[in-house]
Parts: sequence; structure tokens; C-alpha cells
Amino acid sequence: MDIATLIGLVAAFGLVLLGILLGGTLGSFLNAPGALIVIGGTLGATLVSYPLQQVLNAGRVVKKTFFHQSENPKDVIAELLEYAQTVRKEGVLALEDRVESLENPFMQKGLQMAIDGQEPEVVEAILQNEVDKMEDRHETGAAIMDTMGSLSPAFGMIGTLIGLVQMLQSMEDPSTIGPAMAVALLTTFYGALMANAIFIPMAGKLRARSEEETLNYQIIITGVRNIVAGENPRILEQKLLAFLAPKEREPQFD
Amino acid sequence: MDIATLIGLVAAFGLVLLGILLGGTLGSFLNAPGALIVIGGTLGATLVSYPLQQVLNAGRVVKKTFFHQSENPKDVIAELLEYAQTVRKEGVLALEDRVESLENPFMQKGLQMAIDGQEPEVVEAILQNEVDKMEDRHETGAAIMDTMGSLSPAFGMIGTLIGLVQMLQSMEDPSTIGPAMAVALLTTFYGALMANAIFIPMAGKLRARSEEETLNYQIIITGVRNIVAGENPRILEQKLLAFLAPKEREPQFD
Amino acid sequence: MDIATLIGLVAAFGLVLLGILLGGTLGSFLNAPGALIVIGGTLGATLVSYPLQQVLNAGRVVKKTFFHQSENPKDVIAELLEYAQTVRKEGVLALEDRVESLENPFMQKGLQMAIDGQEPEVVEAILQNEVDKMEDRHETGAAIMDTMGSLSPAFGMIGTLIGLVQMLQSMEDPSTIGPAMAVALLTTFYGALMANAIFIPMAGKLRARSEEETLNYQIIITGVRNIVAGENPRILEQKLLAFLAPKEREPQFD
Amino acid sequence: MDIATLIGLVAAFGLVLLGILLGGTLGSFLNAPGALIVIGGTLGATLVSYPLQQVLNAGRVVKKTFFHQSENPKDVIAELLEYAQTVRKEGVLALEDRVESLENPFMQKGLQMAIDGQEPEVVEAILQNEVDKMEDRHETGAAIMDTMGSLSPAFGMIGTLIGLVQMLQSMEDPSTIGPAMAVALLTTFYGALMANAIFIPMAGKLRARSEEETLNYQIIITGVRNIVAGENPRILEQKLLAFLAPKEREPQFD
Amino acid sequence: MDIATLIGLVAAFGLVLLGILLGGTLGSFLNAPGALIVIGGTLGATLVSYPLQQVLNAGRVVKKTFFHQSENPKDVIAELLEYAQTVRKEGVLALEDRVESLENPFMQKGLQMAIDGQEPEVVEAILQNEVDKMEDRHETGAAIMDTMGSLSPAFGMIGTLIGLVQMLQSMEDPSTIGPAMAVALLTTFYGALMANAIFIPMAGKLRARSEEETLNYQIIITGVRNIVAGENPRILEQKLLAFLAPKEREPQFD
Repeated sequence: MDIATLIGLVAAFGLVLLGILLGGTLGSFLNAPGALIVIGGTLGATLVSYPLQQVLNAGRVVKKTFFHQSENPKDVIAELLEYAQTVRKEGVLALEDRVESLENPFMQKGLQMAIDGQEPEVVEAILQNEVDKMEDRHETGAAIMDTMGSLSPAFGMIGTLIGLVQMLQSMEDPSTIGPAMAVALLTTFYGALMANAIFIPMAGKLRARSEEETLNYQIIITGVRNIVAGENPRILEQKLLAFLAPKEREPQFD
Repeated sequence: MDIATLIGLVAAFGLVLLGILLGGTLGSFLNAPGALIVIGGTLGATLVSYPLQQVLNAGRVVKKTFFHQSENPKDVIAELLEYAQTVRKEGVLALEDRVESLENPFMQKGLQMAIDGQEPEVVEAILQNEVDKMEDRHETGAAIMDTMGSLSPAFGMIGTLIGLVQMLQSMEDPSTIGPAMAVALLTTFYGALMANAIFIPMAGKLRARSEEETLNYQIIITGVRNIVAGENPRILEQKLLAFLAPKEREPQFD
Repeated sequence: MDIATLIGLVAAFGLVLLGILLGGTLGSFLNAPGALIVIGGTLGATLVSYPLQQVLNAGRVVKKTFFHQSENPKDVIAELLEYAQTVRKEGVLALEDRVESLENPFMQKGLQMAIDGQEPEVVEAILQNEVDKMEDRHETGAAIMDTMGSLSPAFGMIGTLIGLVQMLQSMEDPSTIGPAMAVALLTTFYGALMANAIFIPMAGKLRARSEEETLNYQIIITGVRNIVAGENPRILEQKLLAFLAPKEREPQFD
Repeated sequence: MDIATLIGLVAAFGLVLLGILLGGTLGSFLNAPGALIVIGGTLGATLVSYPLQQVLNAGRVVKKTFFHQSENPKDVIAELLEYAQTVRKEGVLALEDRVESLENPFMQKGLQMAIDGQEPEVVEAILQNEVDKMEDRHETGAAIMDTMGSLSPAFGMIGTLIGLVQMLQSMEDPSTIGPAMAVALLTTFYGALMANAIFIPMAGKLRARSEEETLNYQIIITGVRNIVAGENPRILEQKLLAFLAPKEREPQFD
Repeated sequence: MDIATLIGLVAAFGLVLLGILLGGTLGSFLNAPGALIVIGGTLGATLVSYPLQQVLNAGRVVKKTFFHQSENPKDVIAELLEYAQTVRKEGVLALEDRVESLENPFMQKGLQMAIDGQEPEVVEAILQNEVDKMEDRHETGAAIMDTMGSLSPAFGMIGTLIGLVQMLQSMEDPSTIGPAMAVALLTTFYGALMANAIFIPMAGKLRARSEEETLNYQIIITGVRNIVAGENPRILEQKLLAFLAPKEREPQFD
């Protein structure tokens, strides 16, 4: 899990918890039927909104995106330049041994096509097509998070309406009104907290993470295409450093 | 009905029902005049918003889209490759017997034009025009669902205002205030539930379903045009597999 | 008035009225000062928002669009094909007598230019320019309806705030609080009803109607341009039928 | 001030005032600290949002746009055609005397460049650049109005929260609750009225007015460029009338 | 800090403070747990939304943008024209001494490339790339401010819900209800004030400031490219003045 997500979730939930404990006990904020309505209603309406396969994919994309640390683009560039020099000196077949042990399957696929002697345009088209599909999957994941972020406050309000209606229909004993209304408000609380501390921020992080990943993949595409085309490693370095912000560029060759 | 929609609707409504039953009886959540105002008002305002024909079409589109299972694109590709091989071996007229029994009317129309000897460009233009019309019909259906999803909470609030005004004008007996207000809140409850468990999610599913259907139709267009042009089945396979995500591609020829 | 608008308005207002009458009398929902604030405030702010001429035009556009039934595109196509055959057989001047009695001024203008011997490109450019202006007028009308649909709930809330402030400042007699608050809520009720049963749906209908009208005009433009260019009526029919959904196409020539 | 703005403001504020006076006195709706919070907070946050220069410009743009009546495009066309005929008969230098007394500085600048013998392309580029800058200034003005239209209800709510907190902390004397809450609601009333009767409608009028002004400037650009190029006045008239709606076109030459 | 931001913040917060002090004491508006929930929750959810590096960058961008006064574009143009004349007279190497002492690093980088004899296209491409990166950083900063502007009212509402639930569950002593509800409302007050007086306006100012900075950088790019290309200083002035509004243009050469 990336450190900002961890700090952020601990801060948001921890301070809400602190606010609760400073004024009373946690127990009065726990309500199983309310939680069922908000969580179950949100998940149910999400399944009506999206095909099952996309919802399951979204779960995987979210999990992978939060636990998978994107590689530093500088390391990706350094790796590509090393391969470019190897190819320059010993030919493309010299990469054959190293390709099998690569962790990054995208880099692996690209270099394998290089070794197989594919044309540069074909390599680029095939890799770009995979990047586009990955971006689509990430965007669908973010859109599902956004949908859940608008559904959870709605089901929170639905739960509160249920509680209010039940409270109002049996108001004989005034002493029960307060606690009953407190319980009714809990679903609004659950819905607002889920939307603003989890779903909406996670949609944002997914989009940011997708941009990072796409940047690395674009660097790999440019690198592999140039390796296939036999480009000079120094010129390739200039091309790859252009993907970085100015102050992050550290030329390897001097 | 696709399984996610079924699970989703059962989950959303089931948990709301459970929440109601855990705190009281279902009877106190049923109110015929309130339901009339919300459902009737939403339908009425939808008829003011859209021409009658489009509203009726939307009903059909929604029904068909929920019950009609899109074909798996892999099956569509396999079917097209089989026709391509038949045409390659025995000529296009060999398809004549099979075309009549096809279930997919779009595939049928495309192949019939192939048999009739139409030019590839003409076949493509005519089929693409039908896909565009279909996408328009689906988008209109989704837009009508979205409209209903914003109208139903509004008529829910209108019903609650009616109930509140009536309650406030006859407050002599304090014991009636609670139940009267409970009834007034029911229309807000109906409107919120209809919008968030039915209309808004169904608009989303319609758009997702339309994308699936359009993908299949694009595959058919590419396939039929290439069959008409006498393309080699192996090369056609490469072209058609490009429509699938990488891991779903299973070449038929080896 | 198109039938869907009529049914829709009757349904929406009828069911709201029924809801009112089932719980009390209509009289308690009538409040002249409140209606003045909501209707007058909405109209006033609309006049601040748009030039006087555009507001008056919008009134005409709305009225005309609701009472004027768009011609069926099939009839438009049939009419154009008849003219095309007449021109083919007897020359373009044979249309001279018929043009004067045409009801559709757009068709009339186009055919008159044909008789006057204008170039096809000139005819098309002049007619297209008029369609664009018509679409602009319709879009301005729909935008004004949308503006009124967001202003009326706002002035409803302003009226309710006035009523609440007045009620709160004279709370000596508790028995007057209920009725005073009921009256205060009426403006919110008026604003919500006007926005959701009239203004917002009418903006939608105007846009749908404008699309229908534009389709007919595009058919006429294509038809007249081809008549001027001396196109074969059978080929013209193919071109014009492409504007219709597949199942609505009924060729005239066999 | 254009007549619709005047009628609209009088209607909106007059009817709100009438609604107030029918139910009590105006005095109970005046609250200096509340007005300070809403007006001052809105202005303050607007200054944080935009550079000082743009806020001052917006004030000028709003004032000028409301008091400055756009010329009728027909008059602009008639004026340009008169100059075109003069130039045709007596040469471009014949305009020299008239240019100095022109009221419209844009027309003046364009004709001065014509007299100075600038190339048509240069004249068009320079004038178009000024129109673009003018549209940018108008759009910034409208955006500032929109910002104020969303800030004023927010500061209205902030003022009401202040009043509510103060009221709730000193509830010993129940008879003061009503009036205190009435005062608290006044800032919400101020914010809603300012946004919906002034800021949001004025943003709309500014955009409508900017379109009118831009139309006149486009007519002048086309006219001056054609005068510089020595175009025949009759053909120029055809070109300029195309900027008008069909029924507003009255040819000057017959 | 630019003067409008200072005046705006003082006005908004000062008037809110005045409103508080006119009706009571400041003490009743201070609540540490509430402030913790709103500020901490907003920051936490922001960290979940954006990568840590971008949040830290946003802090720097905001600070720099508020304290850093953009140079007047007229001064930038004057400076560039001076360099252009120096280069014209004494050659590009005459700039070498001056470049080292330049305050503007962007101008410095551009001129250094000029001295190093880079091609005009290369200089432009490299500088434009840096402007794009700067605009991306500014836009990310503004987007983070917008996110905080929508999160802070949400956590304000979450805090109020916590307070309301706790108040409603212990309503034995009616005299505590008022003050407890007052405290509960404070978080809504904090969230609304933070969003509308700080976050949302600062996002606006950041975008306005970014436009100013980008204008200066575009002027520098055009200037340096033309200096490298050996353009005549008078013609360069014409090109650079086109970036200014007409009335701000004061030619240096006569």
C-alpha cells in the first residue's frame, strides 16, 4: 500500500474515531442493520450499474493499484538504456537470457518481440494497444468507485428515512425519540464517511496511479521501439529523459 | 436477465426490506397515494420530456437489454472465421442455406448482402449506419432512465411537501403529528429508492450493455467486409482478435 | 399539442392534485402572495438573464413547438420523390404552380430556388444556414426553460425563508405556528412543481422536437439539392431513406 | 440599462418586497451584521479567487454592458454599405473626414487602417485579435459573476450557522428562540436573493450581450476587409446580410 | 502575497469574526475535536486521493504562487528587446556575462541555449516542454485545492452527524440540548468556511496566476527563439506586443 493512502486512511478514520471517543463510546455508533442497508444497498446498486465482470475487475484493479508500487521512471529508463547498450554491442539475441527473468511483463513482452525480429511499427502498435486496454480497465475501476461514492450517501439517506418513519410512527414514549433518531442518523453518517474517506478519494488515487503506470509504459514503448530500430543509446537517452520533469533528469552518459 | 442485475436488485431491495422488518412492519411503509404521486409524477414528467415514441422505445430497449444476453465476442469471431473458410473453399453462394437460419439478424443482413454481391464499401456503410442508429436508440434509452432518476426524487420531495403542509394545517391533536409526518416522508423514501436502486443504475447498465453489443457488431462488420473482399481467413483472424483484450485471444489456426 | 405532453401534464398535475385532495382541500394549497413571489421572481430573473427579444422568441418557440406537429419524415420523402419525378419528366418549371400552395415554407423556399435556376451548392448553403439559425433559436428556447427550471426552486426557497422569518418573529400564539409554516412551505412546493413538471421537461421536449424538425429539414435539403442537380429519382430515394431507421424504410419504387 | 434588466430587477425585488410587506414589516428583514457577512464574505472570497485587476475590470465590464446599448446589426450593415459605396465612387481617402467623428471606436480603427492602406489580411488579423480579447474580458466578467453567485449562498449559510450556534448556546429564555432564529435565517435569505436575482442572471446577460457585440464586430470585420479589398457593394451586402436571421434581412439595393 | 488575496482573506475572515463578536464571544466558536475532524479528515482524504509527492508539490506551488509576484509582461518584453539589440550589435556571446546574474531561471535557460548555439526549433521545443510541465504542476495544485474544497464541507457534515448522534443519545437533561447542538454545528461551520474562504478561491487564484506566468513564458519563448534566429528587434517587438491587450501596448521604437 502506498504510504500516502495508509497515512490518509489512518488520519481520516483515526480522527473521526477520536471525535467519537471524546464525546462518548464507539458502541453507540455501531448499528448492524444500518451498515447492511448502506453497504449492501451500495454494492447491490453497483451490480445493477455495471456488468459483473467489470465489478470483479474493479476489485482487482483497486487492490493491485494500491499494493503495487509503480516503478520509478528513472529506473525504467536506466534499465532500457542498459539493454540498448547490450544490443548495440552484442546484438539483440544477447537479451534472450535476461528476458525470461524480467518481473515487468510489459517490458518482457516488448523485448521478446524485439528478439523475435518484429518490425518497430508492429511492436509499437501492439504495445500501445495494451496500454490503451490497461487505461480503459483503470478508468472503469475509477468510474465504479465514483459510482459507489454517489450511491453510498444515497443509501445512507434511505436508511435514515426508514429510521425516521419508524420513529415517527411510535412516538408514545418521548424518551425513546432521541435514541431512535440517533440510530436513524447513523446510516447517513456511514454513507458520508464511506463516500468521502474511501470511495471518492480512491477513485482519485486510481486515476493518479494509472497516469504513473501509463508514463512508465510509454517510456518502455519508446525504448523498445528504438532498441528494435537500433538507435544510438545516447540519443535514446535524450528521448527518454524528455518524459521526466526537468529537475529529475540525470544523464547516465557524460 | 443478466446475473449481476438480478443479484444487485435482490441485494438492494432485500436489505432495505430487512432494515424495515427489523424495526417494524412493512405495512407502515406502504402508502398508495404517495406511490401514485411519485410514480405517476415521474412518468408524467418523462412524457412531457420525451416524445411518446421514444419513451415506448426506451421501455423496449430496457427490457431487451436486460433479458437479451450479448453473445460472447469469441463466439462471434469463431462463427465469422467458419464462414470465411466456407467462402474460401466453396464460394460465397455456399452460405445461402445457412443464412436463413441465423439467429442474429445483423449477421444475417451482412451475409445476405455478401451473397447478393454488394461491394465491400457499400456493405460496411450500410451496416455501420445500423450500428449508429442502434447506439442512438440505446443512448436515448439511457438518457430517459437518467431523467427518471432525477425526476423521481423531485416528485418524492413534492409529495413530502404536500404531506407536511396538510400536517401543519391541522396540528390540534399532537399525537397525530408523528404518524402524519411519517407518511409525508414516505414519498421522499420512494423517490430516493427508485432513483438509486433502479433508474440511475439501469442507465449505467444500458450504456455498458450497448458497448458490448456495439463491439460484437463492429466485429461482424469487419468480418463480413473481409469475407466479401475475399480475405485470407488467417489474416482475418488476426484482424478480428485485435478487438479482444490480450488474454482473451485464442487463435483458432496454429 | 403533442399527445405525450398532454398525457404527461395531466398525469403529473392530476396525481399531485389527487394526492392533495385525498389528504385535505385544494384551498390550503393556494396562496396568492407565494405564487407571486415564485412566478414573478422566476420571470423577473429570467428577464435579467436574457435579452427581452430572446425571452419573447422563446415563448413563441415553445408554443409553436408544442402545437405544431412535425411532419412524418416518410411523408416528406414521398413528397420530394414526387417532385423529383415531375422534374424528371416535365422539367423544373413544372413545379411552378405547385410551389405557391405549399404549406411548408422551407420546402417552398428550396423549390423556388430550384425553379429560379440556382446552383445546387448555393441552394444547399442557403438552406443549411436557415436550419442552423432555427437550431440556435430552439436551443436558446430550451436554455431559457432550463434557466427557469433552476430559478423557480430558488425563488420557492426564498419565499419559504420569508414566511419562516415572519413566523419565527411572532411565535406568541403556538397554535398559529403550524398553519404559518404550512403557508411558508407552499412556495417551495410551487417552485419544485413548476421546475419538475413544466420547465425542465419542456426543455427536454423542445430539444427532442428540434431534432425531429432538423431531420425533416436535412431531408428537404438533400432532396432539393438532388432535384436541382437532376438526380435519378430511384437513386434519390436510396439517399433519402438512409435518414430513416431501417424498419421505417418502405421503398416507393420496386 | 437595457429594458429587460430593469423590468426583471424591479419584478424580482418588487414581488419579494410585496411578499414581505403582505406578511409584516420590512424592518424585520434588515440586519446589518448579516448583510456584512454575506456581502463582505462574498466580495472577500472573490478577491481571493481572482486577481484585483480582473475584479475591477469585471465591474467596468458589467456596468458598460448593462448601460451600453448594442447597435442594431442592420444599422451597422447599412453604415458599412454606405462607406463601401463612397469608397467605390470616390476612393478610400474620401472616408478620411468621416472617420474622425465616428462613435464606434472599433469601426473607426478598422476604417483608419483601410485609409492607411493596410493589406486586407493584416486588417482582419488585427481586428479579430481585438474581438478575441474583448470576448475574453467579457467571459472573465461572467465567470466572476458566476463565482459570486455560488459564494453568496455559501456565506449566507455561514451566517446562519453563526446565528444558530449563538442561539443554541443561550436558550434559557424560550421566547427569544424564535426571533433569534429568524435573524439567523436572514443571511441565507440574503445569499439566495443575491445569487438568484443578481449574480447568476447577470452572468447570463453578460454572455448574451457579449454575443450581440461580437456579432456586430464580426460584421464590421467582414465589411472593412471587403471595403479594403475593393469588393462590389452589392456582393458585400449579400455577405453581410448572411449574418442576420432570414426575416430580418432587408436588402438595400433592388 | 498578492494584495487582492490579502484584502480578500482579511475581509472574509474579519467580517465573519465581526459577525461572531457582535452576537457573543469567539470562545463559543472554538472546538478542538471538531477542528481536528474537519482539518484532519480533509487532509487524510486528500492523501488518499493524491500521491504524497503531488500533495507536497501542491503545498509548494500554492505558497510560491501566492508570494511570488508575476513579472509585468511589459517588463519581460522590454528585457527581451534589449537582449535582441545587444545580440544584433555585438553577437550572441555578448549575453554571456549577463545570463549568469539573471533572476528568472526560465529566461536564463533560454538565453544559455541561445549562447550555446542551439537550433531555434530545439530551443522552442525544450522551453515549451518546460511550460507544459509547469502548467501541469499548477493544474494539479488547483485540482487538489478543489478536492479539499469539496472534502471539507463533507467532513464538516460528518462531524455534525457525530455530535448529533451523541446529543440525541443522552437527552435526559433538556438544558444541555442547545449547547450540544451548537457544538455539533461548529464542524459544519468550519467546513463551509474553509471551503468557501480558502480552498475554492485559492484554486481559482492558482489558475489565474498560472495563466499570467504562462503568458510571460510564452513571451520569453517567442523572444528567445527570435533572438536565436537573428530577427530584427523592431519586427520582434511587433510579435511580442501582440501578446498584450491593445491599450497596454507601448512601442519602444518609434
